[in-house]
Amino acid sequence: MNKTDVLECRDKTESYLSQSLLPFWLERMEDPVYGGFITHFDEFGADSGEDNKSLISQTRSIYTLASAHRAGYGGSKCADMAKSGIEFLIDKMWDNDYGGFYWMTDRSGKVIKNDKVLYGHSFAIYCLSEYTIMSNDPIGLEYAEKTFNLIQNHCYEPQYGGYLEMFGRSWDLAGPGRAGGDRKTLDVHMHLMEAFTCLYECSQKDYHKRKLVEIIKLLIDKVLHPEYGTGIPQFSSDWKQVPQIKFDIIWGWDRYRDGEQKANPSDNTCYGHNAEFAWLLIHALKILKYEISDYRNVLIRIFEHTVNNGIDSKYGGVFVEGPHMGGVYDTEKEFWQQAEVLIGMLDAYIITDDPKYWQAYKNVFDFTFDKVINHNVGEWWPLLTREGEPIWRHMGHAWKTNYHTVRSMIQSIERLNRIIEKIN
Amino acid sequence: MNKTDVLECRDKTESYLSQSLLPFWLERMEDPVYGGFITHFDEFGADSGEDNKSLISQTRSIYTLASAHRAGYGGSKCADMAKSGIEFLIDKMWDNDYGGFYWMTDRSGKVIKNDKVLYGHSFAIYCLSEYTIMSNDPIGLEYAEKTFNLIQNHCYEPQYGGYLEMFGRSWDLAGPGRAGGDRKTLDVHMHLMEAFTCLYECSQKDYHKRKLVEIIKLLIDKVLHPEYGTGIPQFSSDWKQVPQIKFDIIWGWDRYRDGEQKANPSDNTCYGHNAEFAWLLIHALKILKYEISDYRNVLIRIFEHTVNNGIDSKYGGVFVEGPHMGGVYDTEKEFWQQAEVLIGMLDAYIITDDPKYWQAYKNVFDFTFDKVINHNVGEWWPLLTREGEPIWRHMGHAWKTNYHTVRSMIQSIERLNRIIEKIN
Repeated sequence: MNKTDVLECRDKTESYLSQSLLPFWLERMEDPVYGGFITHFDEFGADSGEDNKSLISQTRSIYTLASAHRAGYGGSKCADMAKSGIEFLIDKMWDNDYGGFYWMTDRSGKVIKNDKVLYGHSFAIYCLSEYTIMSNDPIGLEYAEKTFNLIQNHCYEPQYGGYLEMFGRSWDLAGPGRAGGDRKTLDVHMHLMEAFTCLYECSQKDYHKRKLVEIIKLLIDKVLHPEYGTGIPQFSSDWKQVPQIKFDIIWGWDRYRDGEQKANPSDNTCYGHNAEFAWLLIHALKILKYEISDYRNVLIRIFEHTVNNGIDSKYGGVFVEGPHMGGVYDTEKEFWQQAEVLIGMLDAYIITDDPKYWQAYKNVFDFTFDKVINHNVGEWWPLLTREGEPIWRHMGHAWKTNYHTVRSMIQSIERLNRIIEKIN
Repeated sequence: MNKTDVLECRDKTESYLSQSLLPFWLERMEDPVYGGFITHFDEFGADSGEDNKSLISQTRSIYTLASAHRAGYGGSKCADMAKSGIEFLIDKMWDNDYGGFYWMTDRSGKVIKNDKVLYGHSFAIYCLSEYTIMSNDPIGLEYAEKTFNLIQNHCYEPQYGGYLEMFGRSWDLAGPGRAGGDRKTLDVHMHLMEAFTCLYECSQKDYHKRKLVEIIKLLIDKVLHPEYGTGIPQFSSDWKQVPQIKFDIIWGWDRYRDGEQKANPSDNTCYGHNAEFAWLLIHALKILKYEISDYRNVLIRIFEHTVNNGIDSKYGGVFVEGPHMGGVYDTEKEFWQQAEVLIGMLDAYIITDDPKYWQAYKNVFDFTFDKVINHNVGEWWPLLTREGEPIWRHMGHAWKTNYHTVRSMIQSIERLNRIIEKIN
């Protein structure tokens, strides 16, 4: 790899982001009638008409807009749209009686699912904090702190540490099993780390810092496999690994087979989550002003596992998941895993200078730009065969929005620029 | 019983409270050097010199002073002393780094035990709320709410409901067993009900109300014996009854034998706690404006059990504890159980009109005034033989202060006045 390779990736990413990906969303996501964002688009970019606004779709959209403006994209349009998204979120989705955000409204903002789901609240904290960082408007931080306090109040589980995840409207814990009330997951705890990082960056409050440090320790001590250092998806509330089951409330078409169990429910790790965890951890350490070198072993084990098992050297891109000790179970390609591994591999290259990570990045970069991006409209196919043929074809939905794709491009550019600077 | 009997009890209680019991404390509890309260007194009322100020001794003293002033006793002296107690509590015992109150300081206010113990925090909420109700000084409610939020943040356990109880300075949960980190107790949850009642009375906030309603339901559903309706002392965090063990941090010389286990650790109920729970529940229902009649069965079972098993018809007074199904294990007499059963039996009489409760009250009243009160100085002997001979002889200590005794007299007078009014 030489400087030209890096410049080419940077320029290609930048022009795609500003000329194709961001415009896809800026042109169609505003709801002119009810406010908030429409995120349901078919493969042609047409509104599919699905009548819901999920907490995830609204918060992720706000995050995307605020982070894009902060990174210098979209002019005032991103900032204005973020502000109007915040208004919808607070006016329509905040529960004035019990606190917290409802899980789902219809397009008009009428509540259609009033459960309190921790996953959605992590994105609320994330986007509200990012919005205040971007705008200096204090209302973001005000609601981010309210939300943070509510989840400490209602979800924090002091006996074994960590958070329970599924609640009813009045924050009564959901039942066990598929209702999810007796489970703790990598997914939620990793996104809480992401949210607490942004909250602490915004507030600089000690209490937020302590809870961030606590959840980092928990993720490393409990969620990573003791032998392989890879992420374990699902636990009982006392952090015993349990076979992955599908919950009633979901936020992704996770790769469950018939019978709604994984083929290998007790030995599964997801390359996209692992790489996302690693780069989010590096980012958290930077915000904390902690030394990354103190966490080097944790990070390298994950990056090695990703390169050795998750990258498809034949067709390019990142597989879905495989066993902790190595190998692959599911060779299809999900959009968001490509997005997260791009950032992860750049971080791996930056902290190690090992060219194999650049090669892995370039592999996923090429697969993404060749196969994953639907260049007719600018967004990404959600799921593809190993070879790169689209399986699902929608561009946006209740949870597939612009968060993974836009963030991946913004974060990649920032890292590519650092690499270019270092070569100079 | 006739009106004269009631008047006699009322007058005797009132003159004892105002001329003997309150003066005992008002004359000697102020620490002129360091502020806060000295609560270590021997049988002659002399300062025993023990060099500590416990969170319980300070908060209970503030509660006593504030509640006495609110009830019209002590003139401005109680109000002034409560205010100076609040200052010591906030200046010396509040942890500015992690929030919450330290467990123990020396007399000068230097921290000597920095653990965070939920039991002590329930008394903090109780006294801070009572202080604001008495004075309209907002600082009480401010710190009561801060404390309430901290315990929701750190101690609330959403999986099985209720609160974990023992924490280190930074609110890290204590270990299992004797460290107490895996236990839930009647004692703490009952005092949280008491504290949340006073907080809600002061704040009138919905969130405080909801948590009060929640803990009442929990006490009734989990802490009361499913068959006998009597209080079970100790549970694992999933509310399975476990044999009573003595914790490392204690707030009473509870009646453990050698080996620090109860003789009957799995079948023990305490008459004083049962009666205290019942009258505190009635009080909470009043503050909530709930119908007492909806809880009549719960209350009557406890009051019946107390009368049938806890009252010593031979020597007078209340035994320590016995089996849930009836009978007695420990026939000695603890001061605080007399204090709480006095209030409980008056409430039982008021809601049932059954003269057996008046007789039980009168029995304990006579035993208390004849045997338990150390009339030489005005406070109560802490522990007596069944016959009424003092076993322990101190008047005050780190946890035996004026809370049970003064409150019992104030609450008794209020109830006796209601009974007198009804007879008229």
